[in-house]
Amino acid sequence: MFFDDFDNFSLDAHLGGNRFSVVYRLSGDEKTARNKAEDICSEQSVEFPVDLLPPGTIPEKIMGRIEHFGQESPVGWLATISFAEEIAAGEWTQFLNVLFGNISIKRGIQVVAFERGDALAGLFPGPKFGIAGIRKLIEVPTRPPLFTALKPMGLSAQNLARLAGRFVEGGIDIIKDDHGLSDQVFSPFEERVVRCVDAVKEANMRFGCHSIYVPNITAPAERIIDRAFWAKEHGAGGILLSPGLVGLDTLRRLASLNIGVPIFVHPAFIGTYAMSPEHGIDCGMLFGTLMRLAGADATIFPNYGGRFPLSVEDCVGIVRASRKPMGNVLPIFPTPAGGMELKNIREMLNRYGHDTLILVGSGLFRCGDDLIANCRRFQEAVSDQASGKV
Amino acid sequence: MFFDDFDNFSLDAHLGGNRFSVVYRLSGDEKTARNKAEDICSEQSVEFPVDLLPPGTIPEKIMGRIEHFGQESPVGWLATISFAEEIAAGEWTQFLNVLFGNISIKRGIQVVAFERGDALAGLFPGPKFGIAGIRKLIEVPTRPPLFTALKPMGLSAQNLARLAGRFVEGGIDIIKDDHGLSDQVFSPFEERVVRCVDAVKEANMRFGCHSIYVPNITAPAERIIDRAFWAKEHGAGGILLSPGLVGLDTLRRLASLNIGVPIFVHPAFIGTYAMSPEHGIDCGMLFGTLMRLAGADATIFPNYGGRFPLSVEDCVGIVRASRKPMGNVLPIFPTPAGGMELKNIREMLNRYGHDTLILVGSGLFRCGDDLIANCRRFQEAVSDQASGKV
Repeated sequence: MFFDDFDNFSLDAHLGGNRFSVVYRLSGDEKTARNKAEDICSEQSVEFPVDLLPPGTIPEKIMGRIEHFGQESPVGWLATISFAEEIAAGEWTQFLNVLFGNISIKRGIQVVAFERGDALAGLFPGPKFGIAGIRKLIEVPTRPPLFTALKPMGLSAQNLARLAGRFVEGGIDIIKDDHGLSDQVFSPFEERVVRCVDAVKEANMRFGCHSIYVPNITAPAERIIDRAFWAKEHGAGGILLSPGLVGLDTLRRLASLNIGVPIFVHPAFIGTYAMSPEHGIDCGMLFGTLMRLAGADATIFPNYGGRFPLSVEDCVGIVRASRKPMGNVLPIFPTPAGGMELKNIREMLNRYGHDTLILVGSGLFRCGDDLIANCRRFQEAVSDQASGKV
Repeated sequence: MFFDDFDNFSLDAHLGGNRFSVVYRLSGDEKTARNKAEDICSEQSVEFPVDLLPPGTIPEKIMGRIEHFGQESPVGWLATISFAEEIAAGEWTQFLNVLFGNISIKRGIQVVAFERGDALAGLFPGPKFGIAGIRKLIEVPTRPPLFTALKPMGLSAQNLARLAGRFVEGGIDIIKDDHGLSDQVFSPFEERVVRCVDAVKEANMRFGCHSIYVPNITAPAERIIDRAFWAKEHGAGGILLSPGLVGLDTLRRLASLNIGVPIFVHPAFIGTYAMSPEHGIDCGMLFGTLMRLAGADATIFPNYGGRFPLSVEDCVGIVRASRKPMGNVLPIFPTPAGGMELKNIREMLNRYGHDTLILVGSGLFRCGDDLIANCRRFQEAVSDQASGKV
């Protein structure tokens, strides 16, 4: 009716037939859930009343299509919905928009899985280092690497560097900025990077270590890439980014630039996607699959039993998504964190295995008056557990 | 203890004394809520156990400080927490990190207001056009401007342009891309912009209108700025961006570049911040205050009574935040949308007033077989209401 006099256009000629699928968990009774599934098909693509669409290819191929619908629990349903790869336009931003754009503003819809088959080739080159690359860099071939953070905010660059040196002496493999250190006047980015790189280099020489310093390069849009390259050129062994603050697509872009050091991602500002049990993006999908596909080499996540409310199942899902086979996309280091102390190490390693970065921050200040001795205790706890001594 | 032998450093010399405040709504009983407030003070700044901090300036000035704590409802508390402006480092990304970074991964914490006093000067230049600038551009001095979207996805660039021309003929002032149109092969960005600009220009000449076309420039990080300038150079009258997909800071950056056309923002992928009643960022704060401070000239939000679940109070909060006095930051157009039809116009205008963009998309296809006649009905509904005829 509205489109009857429109120009002839062969939409079909532009569609190759590849489709990707998203699995959504839908709350409510069967009718409610099925309505949600049908709504997703149009809301995430044509955003137009189905009965008014011009007949043919648009409703048949551009609109999402329910491939499967079934009950998961008394109040939960799973719908697999497929989309033509062309609607994602070969762009991460538009891919995320199809995945969860408008429906992010609805309720009771959770993205739980993503299957691409032959679709979206080239959109997900993934990480450049992954587990093997990071292990090689720090020369830790098998045991779980030790990871900590420079804090508290308010220390000068010089004093943060002093801390970094002590962490190396104590045997920590990876020393990152706390995610709130950016370019504060009392610890400017460039001065901090230079001083911490120097301190780590000096301590590596002195104690025969291969530790790396990982500065936080989360920054205003026009400065992120510069900070990343600047950090690499000045000796940083990795970079830290909070995709929640700069967009997941910025992570994808950083990874695509082959900066030459691994990217560690931090979950700041991204929590609301995963904090509702009914609505958002499943933890494994968000902190595991999406971070990995976008190019993270290690994904820091808030472990259960610390300061954050994730469940064991959430965390196991993240670990699984970080390392499961995924075509050519390298497995990445799951990095449980967020209030972990030495007493948590045994359980983390038992549950997650050795291909896990163990991040203990403030916890290193909680177990004795001597920081270097505390680091060595951390080292022993991991070694004992890893070698089966405990 | 840990920091006793550290270098002397006058942190105080780096702090000017200006602080900004954030009001958080906290759920739970009084003790729980107070614990949350205390937790926010350290989690959002030093991220370190308070008892282990070096004494002096760090706990006294770098850590957040509870300025007010009080009951709001039987299960809700409000805490005003102030932070030294220096910890935001003059960066939007770090400002957002202080506002809601790590606590986004907790539960029962909602950002409801933000007060900056003399702090953070220069961080929020705000929009370049605002309500007055957009009104001038489309030559609509007083009545509510009419707004619609080009859809459905799957139409060719040529056919979308044909639609755009009809909308101008029907009297629509602003015609935007649907937010899912990016750079699909069946409607490539550049071809679409050129064709739609031409169609709108031609119809403007023919029918004596001053309508504008607003293409969607949401894109991968490395292409956003180029698309924005390209669109402007090729005659676009505004640009559409989804900050949820590219980061709020990218909106701030775009606004800072003085592209020369107003920025319309769309809420895709940002919903989870606002969809939980207990956790996230209040609707007025997110869709109103933050979008405006970051530089949006008009903020599209999902109106109550349509396809999205916001309440009347949520929407009134957004409208208020869009237009309330805010120093030098221009008021912006609140733009209720998301399933609005002609029958909703009366209530929207009564409630929100004339400085509102009325966005009707699919609704224009729902009220008769002739699109141009439907647009005129839209026009009349707004004019009658605006002139007090209804």
